[in-house]
Amino acid sequence: MIGTRLDLERIRAARHVIDPVFLDTPLYRCEALGRALGCAVSIKLETANPVRSFKGRGTELVANLLRGRRETAAVCASAGNLGWALGWSGRRHDIDVTVVAARRASPAKLDRIRALGTALELVDGDHEMARQQAAAIARRRGIRLVEDSLDIETCEGAATIGLELVDRATSADAVLIALGGGAMATGVGHVLKALRPEVEVVCVQPRGAPAMTRSWHERRVVTTATVDTIADGVAGRHPIPEVLNDLLRVADDAVLVDETSIVTGIRMLWQHAGLVVEPSAALGVAAVLADPGRFAGRHVVTVICGSNVDMDAHRRWITR
Amino acid sequence: MIGTRLDLERIRAARHVIDPVFLDTPLYRCEALGRALGCAVSIKLETANPVRSFKGRGTELVANLLRGRRETAAVCASAGNLGWALGWSGRRHDIDVTVVAARRASPAKLDRIRALGTALELVDGDHEMARQQAAAIARRRGIRLVEDSLDIETCEGAATIGLELVDRATSADAVLIALGGGAMATGVGHVLKALRPEVEVVCVQPRGAPAMTRSWHERRVVTTATVDTIADGVAGRHPIPEVLNDLLRVADDAVLVDETSIVTGIRMLWQHAGLVVEPSAALGVAAVLADPGRFAGRHVVTVICGSNVDMDAHRRWITR
Repeated sequence: MIGTRLDLERIRAARHVIDPVFLDTPLYRCEALGRALGCAVSIKLETANPVRSFKGRGTELVANLLRGRRETAAVCASAGNLGWALGWSGRRHDIDVTVVAARRASPAKLDRIRALGTALELVDGDHEMARQQAAAIARRRGIRLVEDSLDIETCEGAATIGLELVDRATSADAVLIALGGGAMATGVGHVLKALRPEVEVVCVQPRGAPAMTRSWHERRVVTTATVDTIADGVAGRHPIPEVLNDLLRVADDAVLVDETSIVTGIRMLWQHAGLVVEPSAALGVAAVLADPGRFAGRHVVTVICGSNVDMDAHRRWITR
Repeated sequence: MIGTRLDLERIRAARHVIDPVFLDTPLYRCEALGRALGCAVSIKLETANPVRSFKGRGTELVANLLRGRRETAAVCASAGNLGWALGWSGRRHDIDVTVVAARRASPAKLDRIRALGTALELVDGDHEMARQQAAAIARRRGIRLVEDSLDIETCEGAATIGLELVDRATSADAVLIALGGGAMATGVGHVLKALRPEVEVVCVQPRGAPAMTRSWHERRVVTTATVDTIADGVAGRHPIPEVLNDLLRVADDAVLVDETSIVTGIRMLWQHAGLVVEPSAALGVAAVLADPGRFAGRHVVTVICGSNVDMDAHRRWITR
C-alpha cells in the first residue's frame, strides 16, 4: 500500500466521470527535443483541450460530486488555470462558480474566466490572500470551497494522467512533474508508485518558489515569505501538510531549477517541439537542462501541464 | 455511393493498421479563437505526434502494405511532411526510404528527415522537379514510388480523421480543410459525405498556389506555371486527374485565401489557441477571416494539419 490519501479504484472510476475531452491526451516521442537534451524525451500533452491545462480532470470530478449532492455553487482561489477549469466544469454541470484571483494575474487568463460567465473577484496581494478571501466567501455563503491539492478530487483527477502513462509509456525511466501545491505530483506519483514503482518520479519546482520542495527534503512543512518566479502556476508559499505527507510517499526526488532554465525550456519546447507552454510546463525540460548527466541516455516523460501564458511574455522568451 | 476511389470499409480497417500515436487526436472547442473569429471554432489537432503532421496516418498504411508484400524500399518527393512521415513509418516497418526534396526546403525539416536515417536527395527546382526525380529513382531501382494524393493509402489514411470527426464533432456545420494535392480533402470529404452529408466540406488553398481550386471550379485539370505562397505544404502546380475527380464528388466548395490572411491566421492560432502551426494549417482560419459573414454564428471545425514551420519565420509572423 502506498499510504497516501489517494485511492487507485477511485482514480480508475474517475475516468468515467471526467469529460473525455480531457482524457487520453497525446503521448509521443519528440526526437528533436531529445537530441537537444541528450536523452529520449516523451511529451504528455495536457494543453489541447478547452481550458489548455490538466486542471479540467480535477474540476470535472469536483463539479460532478457537487451536482450529485445537489449543491449549486462553489468558490476557489486561482492564479488562472484552476479558475478557468472550475468555471468550465461549473458551466457544464450547472454549478455557480466564483473565482478569486490576484489582481495582478495575467489579464488574458482573467478574461477567459469572465467569458465563461464565472463570477470573478479580484484581490490585491498574492495567491495566499486570494485563498483567504475564497475561504471567507465559502463561509459566508455556505458553499463549497475548492482547494487545489487539498481536495482529493484535484489530486485524483490529475492522477488519471498517471493511468495513461502506465498504459502507454511502457519504456519510461523517469517522469518529470511540475510541483506547486502538489495535486499533479501526488496524483501522478501515486499511480506510478502503485503500478510502475520502478519509474522515477521527479518533482520540479522553481528555485524562486521552493516551499514544497524544501518541505519534502526536510520532511516537515517549510513556508517562505515571498515567491519570485515567472511560473505563476506553481508559486505557493504555504505547503498543505496532508499533501506533503502524500508527496513524501510517492516522490523519488524534488529538485529546484532557476528562472534561466525555465525560459530556455520554454524556448526549446517552442523551437524543437512546436509547443507553446506556460512556465510551469517547462519545468521538466528545465530539470534536464540543470542536470543533464542525471538524465543522459535515459527515457524521460515530461508532462506539459498547461499553455496559459501571457503571449507578450512568451514572445519575449522565445526571441531572447 | 459517393463514387470516389476511396472505400469506407478500408478506411475503417485502416484504424487497426496505423500506429495509435497518430489516431484519436484532440478535438476541442477553442472559445477564445471563436470569439475572435465570430463563430464557434473546434480544433482538430494533428500536430501532437512524432512527425508533427497528419501524414503519418497515410504513411503507416503505405509501409504496412509494403511490408506485407515483402517490399523493402520506397521513394517519395516531399516538401517535408510526407518525407518525415514516410521516413518514420519506414524505420518502424523496416522499409528503406529515400526522400527527394527541393534544396530550398526548410533546413529544419530536412534535418529531421536525415535524423531518422532516411536517405535524402536534394534537387534544384521546385516540388514538380522533385517528383520527376523520385519517379526516376523508383524506375531505376524498381522500388515503390509513393505519390501523395494519387496513392489511395495517403487519402484513406487522412480519411481516418473524418471518422474521428463523425464520431465526435456532432454539432459541426462545416469542416475547413487545407487543399494541396488533395489527399486530406478527398479523404476527410469522402467520410463526411458518406456519413454526415449535411456537413459542409470547404477546401482552402492559397491564392498563390491555386491549381487544384481552379481545377475544381472548372471541373478539369488546370495547371499553373509557378507557385508563390508561404504554405509550402500545399504548393503544387499539377493537379492529379484522379484526385480531382474524387474532389469533385466530395467538396462543397473550394476557396482561395491571400497570404496576409494566412499570416494573420498563424498569429491568431498562436495568440488565441496557444498553437504553433505551419502555414497550411492556418488556411481554415484564413478562410473565415476572408469571408466572416459566411461562417458567422456557425460551428466550424478546422483541421490543424501540421506544425512543421521554419521557426525564424514563425517568430516573424507572430511579431508583425
